[in-house]
Amino acid sequence: MGLCVACHGEDGVSRVAGTPHLAGQDGLYLRRALQDYRSGRRQHVPMSSLANSLQPADIEALAAWYASRPGFAAAGVAP
Amino acid sequence: MGLCVACHGEDGVSRVAGTPHLAGQDGLYLRRALQDYRSGRRQHVPMSSLANSLQPADIEALAAWYASRPGFAAAGVAP
Repeated sequence: MGLCVACHGEDGVSRVAGTPHLAGQDGLYLRRALQDYRSGRRQHVPMSSLANSLQPADIEALAAWYASRPGFAAAGVAP
Repeated sequence: MGLCVACHGEDGVSRVAGTPHLAGQDGLYLRRALQDYRSGRRQHVPMSSLANSLQPADIEALAAWYASRPGFAAAGVAP
């Protein structure tokens, strides 16, 4: 999880323009995104290499955790 | 916009598992995602063909609109 926080924020609300918020995102979408980065179907530096270091169980846990976070508004992110 | 609603919901909160919420998402990320679908750097049915039908100004407007929507929590989406 530590690797995700640098770009996606402690709570899954990104502080870096161009980096997507993950908090409250659809869990299946998140899982597929990580799987696609891992398979190469989707490419991005550094996501591709990060996803490659994950086991399937890690992907499940990360997707579920971020999907369970309160959505953006709750985190006080000005739309 | 009508084409987006079918999957991404009226307010950018998806009702379809596996389809990402867009409400309150980072605007630059949304713009890049649409541009990538349009260029083929990112591929997905039906996003690739939908993005191909968009003009650059459409992409700007859609990304800005969805980024300005209240985030997921505000839309009462159970995380």
